[in-house]
Amino acid sequence: MGVIVQKYGGTSVANTEKIKGVAQRIVKTRAAGNSVVAVVSALGDTTDELLKLAHEITPDPPEREVDMLLATGEQVSVALLSMAIHTLGYDAISFTGAQAGIVTDNTHAKAKIVDVKSDRIRDELKRGKIVIVAGFQGVTVDQDITTLGRGGSDTTAVALAAKLKADVCEIYTDVDGVYTTDPNLVREARKITAISYEEMLEMAATGAGVLQLRAAEYGRNYKVLIHVRSSFLDEPGTLIKEDTGMERAFVTGITYDTSEAKVTILGVPDKPGIAAKVFSSLAEADVNVDMIIQNVGEKGTADISFTVARDNLGRAEKVVGEVVKELDARGTNYDRSIAKISLIGAGMRTHPGVAAEMFATLAKNNINIQMISTSSIKISCVIRAEQVKTAVQALHKKFELEKEPEEAKEGVG
Amino acid sequence: MGVIVQKYGGTSVANTEKIKGVAQRIVKTRAAGNSVVAVVSALGDTTDELLKLAHEITPDPPEREVDMLLATGEQVSVALLSMAIHTLGYDAISFTGAQAGIVTDNTHAKAKIVDVKSDRIRDELKRGKIVIVAGFQGVTVDQDITTLGRGGSDTTAVALAAKLKADVCEIYTDVDGVYTTDPNLVREARKITAISYEEMLEMAATGAGVLQLRAAEYGRNYKVLIHVRSSFLDEPGTLIKEDTGMERAFVTGITYDTSEAKVTILGVPDKPGIAAKVFSSLAEADVNVDMIIQNVGEKGTADISFTVARDNLGRAEKVVGEVVKELDARGTNYDRSIAKISLIGAGMRTHPGVAAEMFATLAKNNINIQMISTSSIKISCVIRAEQVKTAVQALHKKFELEKEPEEAKEGVG
Repeated sequence: MGVIVQKYGGTSVANTEKIKGVAQRIVKTRAAGNSVVAVVSALGDTTDELLKLAHEITPDPPEREVDMLLATGEQVSVALLSMAIHTLGYDAISFTGAQAGIVTDNTHAKAKIVDVKSDRIRDELKRGKIVIVAGFQGVTVDQDITTLGRGGSDTTAVALAAKLKADVCEIYTDVDGVYTTDPNLVREARKITAISYEEMLEMAATGAGVLQLRAAEYGRNYKVLIHVRSSFLDEPGTLIKEDTGMERAFVTGITYDTSEAKVTILGVPDKPGIAAKVFSSLAEADVNVDMIIQNVGEKGTADISFTVARDNLGRAEKVVGEVVKELDARGTNYDRSIAKISLIGAGMRTHPGVAAEMFATLAKNNINIQMISTSSIKISCVIRAEQVKTAVQALHKKFELEKEPEEAKEGVG
Repeated sequence: MGVIVQKYGGTSVANTEKIKGVAQRIVKTRAAGNSVVAVVSALGDTTDELLKLAHEITPDPPEREVDMLLATGEQVSVALLSMAIHTLGYDAISFTGAQAGIVTDNTHAKAKIVDVKSDRIRDELKRGKIVIVAGFQGVTVDQDITTLGRGGSDTTAVALAAKLKADVCEIYTDVDGVYTTDPNLVREARKITAISYEEMLEMAATGAGVLQLRAAEYGRNYKVLIHVRSSFLDEPGTLIKEDTGMERAFVTGITYDTSEAKVTILGVPDKPGIAAKVFSSLAEADVNVDMIIQNVGEKGTADISFTVARDNLGRAEKVVGEVVKELDARGTNYDRSIAKISLIGAGMRTHPGVAAEMFATLAKNNINIQMISTSSIKISCVIRAEQVKTAVQALHKKFELEKEPEEAKEGVG
């Protein structure tokens, strides 16, 4: 019997009835002899409602005050959950991020955890108490309240699990695990039994919303066994753990992302420093760039294409407009209707033919590839948004993702 | 040009429109060259809504967790108010009770302030910022969140004003000052220009809801000039300050309280230790007793009467039932329909005839007095609840409270 960290998202604690259900699940884990730390998000839509209040005051509230405001959401959840556990006859104690010792840098709205001072939690666990921690929030060394960005409760949970050397960090959510792809697109999508940190990182980075990217990173860095599972069912979900090097599958999952837009700068003079100029201007305007390609074209000019979050396209257009003038480029082109589809699989490292099979499969389905980017365990292609479903279905079938890979069937070697 | 502490109650910040109004008032004070600390309550009915959530979980939630829950209400207010001030072009910073250094004992739900660590506030004031502090809440030395009881924001404000040696502590509320009596009962009720701490304490203790009792105590102990005034009007309200010894009025105000019930234990053996037995049992059951009278009756027995909050009457009946058996008393009598009316005035110290005039006035109006209790500046009588209006009107007229006392007219001597 060890230490178990559990994380419950906003849909798991959407109302007081659901909070009572979560309390029962926690008590069951405690009754089995484990020390339990539960990390909780804000109730249902609380965060959006609080933001609405802020925007009634001003369209552009100071981030420090937004964090102050939003942090109340999780504080409500932890207090109510602790009460619900008390009614079941168990002793619980709730903590804000600050009280739980979640110390962050002072980047409000997307703070990074820099330390976890877990003394108070350890003391209360030793006293036999169930510890309930407000997710998504921390505190700077000056005691200012910060938040970790959307989905930050996952990061809180994994960071606590790392610090407490927990046996497992269970991420309870409204889906029952990580799937080979979106089951809404592909009926045959299969729940993955186990996935490596690296694969999960690529899945999270390319569109799988089930676990926050930074939580996966934290898990990898500190080797935290993560279990993504349903808060409404009892069956096991997906384990995220170290790569055992035994995977037989070439491809583990397929993700897609339709939230980006593509920007192309045409006819840029092909000389050193141009790309640096473009992308440093974008960075200064706080526009995050995802994929980048540059083709050398005719007459000593190049075309530069890149993708940005569609929400940032307005800012990007402004920056690019200025840059185009300055560089004397031929023109620009903006495409809001793109999608990025990605194949992820640690098996690709030893099977170099995967990329070619992917391109061939897309070609056979008359899907034009606009951009390509690869890592050692991932291939991403930008295609037309309306072709996403066809592409994902064809690739899922081609790589036989509906079938359980042999490693998982046989157990970890 | 000095330090001004302002306190805004829940009705003053009931919605984002009203918060913007409060922001303008604060900025006006700041623009006049003052350092401003604003203490804010939770928005409108927030506290009640949060308690409703808690009671959906359990009828008897642990007080530590209730405090954790309720403290979010003020945290929302301070964040929104700080945003609203920013939009007016002024720099503001919001603090929770903990961040503001409000240190309390660990009596959850009715904690007492034991220290105010004001370094952070002083630093931010020096930087020219407007400091917004969550009222009603504090933190123990173990960093557990506490609340100060209903109306506790007044106490936060006065405690901060004391620590910061503020020029004035302005209590903004939905009435425009302290009145000689309830204007709803007596049309001629007059706003009091200035009142001593002692009188305000007796007013607050006997039913005037405009300022929390403990805030008045804190003000007296630390000689904080308090100004109770309307958050919707610009005219001055009521000053609460040291007794200048110049009052010409015998009676400053009349209060009443219809929230109590009377308990009588009949035919108690008249021997030492009986009263101690009764009231220690009530104290153990957490029943606060207000007035007590004991009459020695016939045949060596006594009747004991006392008043308790009507909300506590159930608990009181249980305790008294047991005590009556144990003491072999003759019986009990419970009266839910009583009212306590009180005359308050520092002038009574030097005018001993006030009590007699009060009793005569009540008698002339056919009002029977059931219990009497006095202090050096107060006389309270328990009467039938339905006679409150008649009693208050008659007394207000008798003591000519509609007329401004000469001291106030002439200015402080």
